[in-house]
Amino acid sequence: MKIALVLGSASDMPVAQKAEETLAGFGIDYEIRILSAHRSPDAAASFARDARKAGFGVIIAFAGMAAHLAGTLAAHSTLPVIGVPCKGGLLDGLDALFSTVQMPAGVPVGAVALNGGVNAALLAAEILSLADSRLADELAAYKQRLADETAQKDAQLQGRFDERRI
Amino acid sequence: MKIALVLGSASDMPVAQKAEETLAGFGIDYEIRILSAHRSPDAAASFARDARKAGFGVIIAFAGMAAHLAGTLAAHSTLPVIGVPCKGGLLDGLDALFSTVQMPAGVPVGAVALNGGVNAALLAAEILSLADSRLADELAAYKQRLADETAQKDAQLQGRFDERRI
Amino acid sequence: MKIALVLGSASDMPVAQKAEETLAGFGIDYEIRILSAHRSPDAAASFARDARKAGFGVIIAFAGMAAHLAGTLAAHSTLPVIGVPCKGGLLDGLDALFSTVQMPAGVPVGAVALNGGVNAALLAAEILSLADSRLADELAAYKQRLADETAQKDAQLQGRFDERRI
Amino acid sequence: MKIALVLGSASDMPVAQKAEETLAGFGIDYEIRILSAHRSPDAAASFARDARKAGFGVIIAFAGMAAHLAGTLAAHSTLPVIGVPCKGGLLDGLDALFSTVQMPAGVPVGAVALNGGVNAALLAAEILSLADSRLADELAAYKQRLADETAQKDAQLQGRFDERRI
Amino acid sequence: MKIALVLGSASDMPVAQKAEETLAGFGIDYEIRILSAHRSPDAAASFARDARKAGFGVIIAFAGMAAHLAGTLAAHSTLPVIGVPCKGGLLDGLDALFSTVQMPAGVPVGAVALNGGVNAALLAAEILSLADSRLADELAAYKQRLADETAQKDAQLQGRFDERRI
Amino acid sequence: MKIALVLGSASDMPVAQKAEETLAGFGIDYEIRILSAHRSPDAAASFARDARKAGFGVIIAFAGMAAHLAGTLAAHSTLPVIGVPCKGGLLDGLDALFSTVQMPAGVPVGAVALNGGVNAALLAAEILSLADSRLADELAAYKQRLADETAQKDAQLQGRFDERRI
Amino acid sequence: MKIALVLGSASDMPVAQKAEETLAGFGIDYEIRILSAHRSPDAAASFARDARKAGFGVIIAFAGMAAHLAGTLAAHSTLPVIGVPCKGGLLDGLDALFSTVQMPAGVPVGAVALNGGVNAALLAAEILSLADSRLADELAAYKQRLADETAQKDAQLQGRFDERRI
Amino acid sequence: MKIALVLGSASDMPVAQKAEETLAGFGIDYEIRILSAHRSPDAAASFARDARKAGFGVIIAFAGMAAHLAGTLAAHSTLPVIGVPCKGGLLDGLDALFSTVQMPAGVPVGAVALNGGVNAALLAAEILSLADSRLADELAAYKQRLADETAQKDAQLQGRFDERRI
Repeated sequence: MKIALVLGSASDMPVAQKAEETLAGFGIDYEIRILSAHRSPDAAASFARDARKAGFGVIIAFAGMAAHLAGTLAAHSTLPVIGVPCKGGLLDGLDALFSTVQMPAGVPVGAVALNGGVNAALLAAEILSLADSRLADELAAYKQRLADETAQKDAQLQGRFDERRI
Repeated sequence: MKIALVLGSASDMPVAQKAEETLAGFGIDYEIRILSAHRSPDAAASFARDARKAGFGVIIAFAGMAAHLAGTLAAHSTLPVIGVPCKGGLLDGLDALFSTVQMPAGVPVGAVALNGGVNAALLAAEILSLADSRLADELAAYKQRLADETAQKDAQLQGRFDERRI
Repeated sequence: MKIALVLGSASDMPVAQKAEETLAGFGIDYEIRILSAHRSPDAAASFARDARKAGFGVIIAFAGMAAHLAGTLAAHSTLPVIGVPCKGGLLDGLDALFSTVQMPAGVPVGAVALNGGVNAALLAAEILSLADSRLADELAAYKQRLADETAQKDAQLQGRFDERRI
Repeated sequence: MKIALVLGSASDMPVAQKAEETLAGFGIDYEIRILSAHRSPDAAASFARDARKAGFGVIIAFAGMAAHLAGTLAAHSTLPVIGVPCKGGLLDGLDALFSTVQMPAGVPVGAVALNGGVNAALLAAEILSLADSRLADELAAYKQRLADETAQKDAQLQGRFDERRI
Repeated sequence: MKIALVLGSASDMPVAQKAEETLAGFGIDYEIRILSAHRSPDAAASFARDARKAGFGVIIAFAGMAAHLAGTLAAHSTLPVIGVPCKGGLLDGLDALFSTVQMPAGVPVGAVALNGGVNAALLAAEILSLADSRLADELAAYKQRLADETAQKDAQLQGRFDERRI
Repeated sequence: MKIALVLGSASDMPVAQKAEETLAGFGIDYEIRILSAHRSPDAAASFARDARKAGFGVIIAFAGMAAHLAGTLAAHSTLPVIGVPCKGGLLDGLDALFSTVQMPAGVPVGAVALNGGVNAALLAAEILSLADSRLADELAAYKQRLADETAQKDAQLQGRFDERRI
Repeated sequence: MKIALVLGSASDMPVAQKAEETLAGFGIDYEIRILSAHRSPDAAASFARDARKAGFGVIIAFAGMAAHLAGTLAAHSTLPVIGVPCKGGLLDGLDALFSTVQMPAGVPVGAVALNGGVNAALLAAEILSLADSRLADELAAYKQRLADETAQKDAQLQGRFDERRI
Repeated sequence: MKIALVLGSASDMPVAQKAEETLAGFGIDYEIRILSAHRSPDAAASFARDARKAGFGVIIAFAGMAAHLAGTLAAHSTLPVIGVPCKGGLLDGLDALFSTVQMPAGVPVGAVALNGGVNAALLAAEILSLADSRLADELAAYKQRLADETAQKDAQLQGRFDERRI
C-alpha cells in the first residue's frame, strides 16, 4: 500500500520532504500531490474519493492557516487521514492546528505537531506495519536507534563533562 | 436576490435565527439549508456551485469547531461568502474563528463576530443595498434607530440618575 | 486485532465511552484500561511494550491537563497511538491539546479534537479497515449515513421553512 | 462603483498594495485614503458618512493593534465594510483581529485574514459582481485559473517526482 | 472636577456601578452616560470633545467585545481616559482587553483589569487627588484600611487555626 | 509636579526613552530610576512611599515578563501609576500585559499598550493638564498636529495616486 | 521545619485547604497566613524576610489575577517559594499562571498547576524529605499508593468490563 | 547532595548551561544527563528511580514542545523536580510551559519561567540551603548583590541623567 502526501500549497514542500525522507528510509511507497481544498477543491475531492482504490493506505495532508485540507480529504475518504498543520499563518500556526485537529464527530483526522513531517510519516508507517511484520521490525529497530543515539549523546556529554572536571 | 443561510449543523440554528429575523425585518428573501463541509461535502459543493444561478446574492455560513463550511462554499462560488464562527468548540470558539477567517489568498471569506448572526444578515443587507435604494434607505433608518435607542437609554439613565440625586 | 482504550484517569470515562460505543457499533474488539503516565508509569510502559504481541492494533489514549499518556505509550510501542485530549484543565483543555499533539520527531501521536472520543474510534476503525474489507465497506456505509442524515435534516428544515412561509 | 481603501496608517501600505493590485487586475476603480480612527477621527467619520454618495460601493479598512478603523467607518456608513487586520502589534496581530471582527450587533464588519489584502479586494469584487455580469465572469475565470495553476504545479511535481524515481 | 462614567451599552451597568459606589464613597462628583462608539458615534464624539469644558477631569469608558469606546473618546479629548474592558465576548473578554489597551502612539488609554470598575474609580480618584489634599488623605486612609482588613482576616485565620490545633 | 519613570531593568530603557522624549517635548519635569520589584524591592517600596512628598505627580513603571513593578509601586503609593508592559518574555509580552493590567480591586494600575512609552507619557501629561491650562493647550495642539500629519500623508498619497493614474 | 501557606486573599482558601490536608497527612507542621502583595505589602515583605529564622523551610503562595504574591515573597526571602496560581481571573487563570511563573533571573519561584494545592504541598514535602528519611519513606509509600489505587481502578474496570461481555 | 540537570535533547544545552554556571558559582555539585522521556524512556525512568540513592537532592529537567520530561522523572522519583520549559515549539514555548506545569495531583513539578535556567539552579540551591547554612548565607549575599547591582545601575543612570541636564 502507498502513502499519499498531499500538499495544500507548494510552500508546504519543506515540511513534506521530511515526511518523504522518512518514508523512503523505511522503503515505503508514496506519491506527492498538490491539491488545494480552496483553490482546486474538485481535484482534492476526486483524489480522496478514489484513493483507496488507487492503492493508497494512508493520506497525509499538509496545510497552513485555515488548514482545511485534511478535513476535506477526510470528508471524501474512509482511509486514515493524518493532518500536518504548517506554520506561517497566525500565532506560529495555531490557526492551522485548530483548523486541522478540531474536526466534528464523524469525520476523523489525526493531527501531528506543527510542521511534524517526520512524525506523520512514522505514524503512517506504524499503520502499515499492522499488516507488514518486516516494517514492524524496522520500526522497532528505529525506536531502538533513537534510544541508542540519545544514550550516545548522553555518554559523549559525560565524557566532556568528566574531562572538564579533571 | 436571495440570501442563503447555510448551517453546518442543526445545532447552529439559534445563531442562524438571529440572522433570519434580521433579514425578515428588512423584507429580504432567504433560504436556510443544512449542508456540512464534512458530512455532506458533495451537497455543499453542489449548492455553492449553483448558488448564483439559483438567484442567491450572498451566502452566509454558520459553523463551529474546525469551521470549514464558509471556506468550502467559497471554494465553489464567486458569490460573497460571510462566515459566522459559532461557539461550542475550543476557547469560546477561537477554533471556529481561526478556521473561518484565516483563508488563503484567492478564496475570500468575510468573517463576523463569534455567534454574530445579526451582523452577518446586516452585512448581507448592505451588500444588496448597493443595487436597491429602498434597502439603502432602510439601512440608514436602522442605523438612526440604533442611535436613537442608545440616546433614549442614555436619557432614561440621566432621569433615574437625577432623581436619585435629589 | 483489538483496540486498546487507555484512560489516564477514571474521570476520562465519559469521553472514552463515546469511543467504546463507536467501536462496538462496528463490531470491533477492544479493551479498556486505566493506566496513568504519572501515577502508574511502570504499568503504562509495560502495557505499551507488550501491546502489539497482545493482539492490539491501535492504542487510543485519553488524558487531560499535562496529558502525557499518549506520548508515554508511544514512547514504548510502535503501534499507532491516537491521543484524545480531555477538557477539564486550563483553557478548555488547551493544555491537554498541546501536551498531546506537540510530540518531538521520532515518537508520533495522532491527536483528535478535544474530547473527540467518536473520532478516535473512527480513526482506529479506518486503520483496521486497511486489512479488513468488510470494515472498509461499513465505514463507507457510515459515511453515507452521515450524508443522508444531514440531507434529511436539511429536507425537514426546508419542509418547516416552506410551511412557515405559506 | 468605486472601492475605498482606507489605511489607518501609512505603515499599512504594503498590505493595501496587495488589494490595490488585485482590484486593478479586475479593472475595478478605487481610491486610497489615510484616515485614522484615532488621529484623524473627524476626517474618518466624514469620509464614511459621505462614501455612498461619493460613489463608493465597498469600504476596505486596513489597521493594526487596537484596530478600530473598520468599526469606526462602519459606525458612520451603511456600505459594506471589509476589515483587514494588520500584523505588527501583539501576538502576530491577534489584537487587530479581535478588534476588527468582534463588532457588536448592529454595526457589521466582514473581516478577512491577517494581512489579507488580496482577499479583501476579491470579496469587494464579488460584491460588485452581483450587479456586473462581466465582473462575475472574470471572477469565475480567476477561480478557474487558481485551479489550473494548482493543477499545473501538481503536474510539475509529478514530473519531477517521476524523473527522480527512474 | 467631575468624573464621566461612559457605558458602551446598558449591559455594562453592573461593572459601572462598582465604579459609581467607589466614587461616591470618596464624595467625588460623577455623571453616567450611555454613548456607543458604534451605535451613537456622533454623540460619543461630541461628548468627548466638550468634556473638559463641561467640568470633567477624567473619563472612564466601559465596553466589551471590540471595545472601541475608550479609544474613540480618547480620539476626541485630551482628558485622561481610563478603559474598563468588560467580559462577555471572546475568551473571558480578551477581545475587549486587546481592543482597549493596544492603542497606537499618540492617543493614550489607561486600561484596568477586566471588569475592573473599582480600580478605574480609584485611579480617577488618585488623579484628582493631585490637586486635592483632602482626597489624597482619604486615599491614604483607604490604603491603610485595605492593609488593616487584610491583617484582620489574617488574625482571624490565626485564631481559628490555633483553636483547631488545641 | 514631576513624573517618575521607573524601570524594572536597564533593558527597558529603549521603551522608557520614548516616554522621556515625549515628556521633554511638553516641557514636563521627570526623573528616571531603575528599581526592581524583585531584585531591589525595598528601594522600590521606599521610592513609592515617598514619591508624593518628593513632588511626583504620576509614576510610570516599565517592566517585562511577570511584570510586578507597576503593581508593587501602586501597593505603596496613592499616586496614579501607569504600567508599560515590555516585550521580551512570553508571547510578545502577553505575560507582562496580564501581570500589569490584571490588578485586584483596591490597588489600581492603568496599563498602556505593549512597549507603549509614548502613550504612557501622554497619559501622564493629560493627568497633569487638569491643573495646568498651558499643558492642556499644548495637548490640544499635539492632537491637532496628529490630525494634520495624517491629513498631510493622505494628501501626499492622493497626489502620488493621481500622478500614477495620469 | 514548618511550611508557610500564604494566601493573597481569603478567597484562595479552598485551594489552600487542599495543601493543608496534604501536609497534615504527612504530619508536616505548617502555618497559614493571609498576606497580600498589594493590600498589605509591608506585612508580606516582613513575613518573608523573617521566615527562615522563624523556622519555615518552604513558602507556598496562593494568588490569582496579576498574582504577584509568590514573586514578592521570593524577593524578600532565600527560602524556596512555591507559587500556586489560582483560577478566577482571566482565561481560566492564565493571567495568574503567567504572573507566577515568568519570574526574571535572580528571583526564583517554582510554579505548580492552576489551583494545584495538593502538588504544592507534595513538592514542599519532597523538599523537606531531603533531610528527613522518615518523610522520604512516606513519600515513597504515597507514590506506591497512587500506583496501587490506579491499578485497583483498572482491575475494577476490567471486572465490570468482563461482566458486561459475558 | 548533587543536583541532576537532565536534558530531553542536546538542543536544550544553552539553557542548561545557565543553570550549570549558576550552580558552579555556588560551589554546588551537579551532573548533566541527556535522557529523553520519548526517545529513551527506560533510561529516564531508571535514572529517576535511582536518583535519591545516587546522592541527588534535586532534579532539574529541561524540555521543549510536549515537554513530558519533568513529569516523567517526577513519576519515578520522590525528589523535588524542577521543570524548565524550553522555547522552540509553539507560541514561544507555551506548549512546553503547559506540558510542564499542568501536572495532575499526586505527582508535583515546580516550573520556572521559559528558558529559566538560572532560576532553576537558584531554586535548587535554595532547597539545598535548608540543610546547609553556608549556602544559605551565600544565597543571602547573592540576593544582596542583586539589590546592590540594581542600585548601582540606578545611580549610574542618575549620574548620566544629571550630567545631561546641566
